[in-house]
Amino acid sequence: MRLATVTTHYGSTAALWQGGWRRLPEPDLSAFLREHAIADAPDLASDELVDAQPVVLLPTPGKVICCGLNYGDHIEETGREKPTYPTLFAKYADTLIGPDEPIELPAGVEADWEAELAVVVGTALRRATRAQAAAGIAGYAVANDISVRDWQRRTLQWFQGKAWDATTPLGPVLVTPDELDPEAGVEVVCRVNGVERQRGNTKTLVFDSAALLAYISTFTVLRPGDVVLTGTPGGVGMAMTPPTYLADGDVVETEIAGIGILANTVRFAA
Amino acid sequence: MRLATVTTHYGSTAALWQGGWRRLPEPDLSAFLREHAIADAPDLASDELVDAQPVVLLPTPGKVICCGLNYGDHIEETGREKPTYPTLFAKYADTLIGPDEPIELPAGVEADWEAELAVVVGTALRRATRAQAAAGIAGYAVANDISVRDWQRRTLQWFQGKAWDATTPLGPVLVTPDELDPEAGVEVVCRVNGVERQRGNTKTLVFDSAALLAYISTFTVLRPGDVVLTGTPGGVGMAMTPPTYLADGDVVETEIAGIGILANTVRFAA
Repeated sequence: MRLATVTTHYGSTAALWQGGWRRLPEPDLSAFLREHAIADAPDLASDELVDAQPVVLLPTPGKVICCGLNYGDHIEETGREKPTYPTLFAKYADTLIGPDEPIELPAGVEADWEAELAVVVGTALRRATRAQAAAGIAGYAVANDISVRDWQRRTLQWFQGKAWDATTPLGPVLVTPDELDPEAGVEVVCRVNGVERQRGNTKTLVFDSAALLAYISTFTVLRPGDVVLTGTPGGVGMAMTPPTYLADGDVVETEIAGIGILANTVRFAA
Repeated sequence: MRLATVTTHYGSTAALWQGGWRRLPEPDLSAFLREHAIADAPDLASDELVDAQPVVLLPTPGKVICCGLNYGDHIEETGREKPTYPTLFAKYADTLIGPDEPIELPAGVEADWEAELAVVVGTALRRATRAQAAAGIAGYAVANDISVRDWQRRTLQWFQGKAWDATTPLGPVLVTPDELDPEAGVEVVCRVNGVERQRGNTKTLVFDSAALLAYISTFTVLRPGDVVLTGTPGGVGMAMTPPTYLADGDVVETEIAGIGILANTVRFAA
């Protein structure tokens, strides 16, 4: 199944793809995942929506937890060793934007791209085993953990480089695990102004989706609609020679085969 | 003014202290700060509550952002230099507990104390000046950023040692800035089983409350009821010789003169 939050002439709604977008109860996919079992979506789908366009997939996740240093080639380009434990940091829902919304930043910051597979939680998980965590995955989406490198480097903690409002594209749809198997491998790609900058395969992840959810659930509950970003492959701008950052008007395309494409334009405020 | 979330025989409510606790509209202080201006509290207070006890001060803040390395003596004990920028990390509302609730942890982790002044946001702040940030402070509370040091040290990012559910006491009340001036200096104290372990004064903070709110608002909006923890003074357990951590049954008292005392017992799960 493919689900999304879409806008129509009548406002936004959760929706299920069945040749066209069909209306689900609840105004967005965050609310739908909190209120319903995802398996019930086909029974709950009603009228087909005209001119529906996906917007930010999950507007109100309680938690957006990110894993850094999770692809072998990206670990290498940062000069670090393969980790024993996942490196985790948090961001807030205010960071999230839709699949074609602008990435809004002040002029002059060192903004970099990080294409990622996002895993969306479907059932509450606390001290979950790997099997429970795997069964608790609602599905997968595309994300780009746009990072403000100069702020990320200001201190030991990355948070202030990662938590800028309206900088993290998420979407365009959620694809359920029966249709997509990141453990078998899907390609995660980032292009900037049409030039490919990143290409990784999720089968090379050090910690896969189920491993990350189980690990996180050791210390905090994960709830339906929470999001975990699984890390980025090699090819980020700060590792280029010379380091290269996003400029006003640049178009960042983030693609995962089997899910879709995000296309977001960088907008620097004056 | 002193405000809190209290429980009575009839459930929980936001409340204002006027010789006794008087009922405010909204079921808790998070909801009250979202829905009302704090200056209106005296006009909105109604019947006096019998047997009211403060519980977790803010049950649903959207953001709980913490500053590390903000007291000179704590910076020294961690072997670091006085910072140019605040070191920030995030936790979630699930970490918060009330002024006398247990700190719940699995047996065997290295749990440490961090007494802190908490600043609570009263008005929405985005790209705020220092003056706007100061005017946007709803008030102050006591917090203890109980930290799981072995998990904090597993990776470069502290989040996984700081975000354990039900480990961060917050309260007992919110005191408005007209009654408490941390810039002039208030004492922040931590005792474990009655033995004083930390004592710092907020006048020695590298970044004070207004500075932290203004800085954070550069990259993300702060909303009424959001919480910023301003860092801990010297005297944490990991800096003792030998390093000393909390044991099952230990009582952690966290006190700020002019606000109150939190008294939380450590409970290790079997």
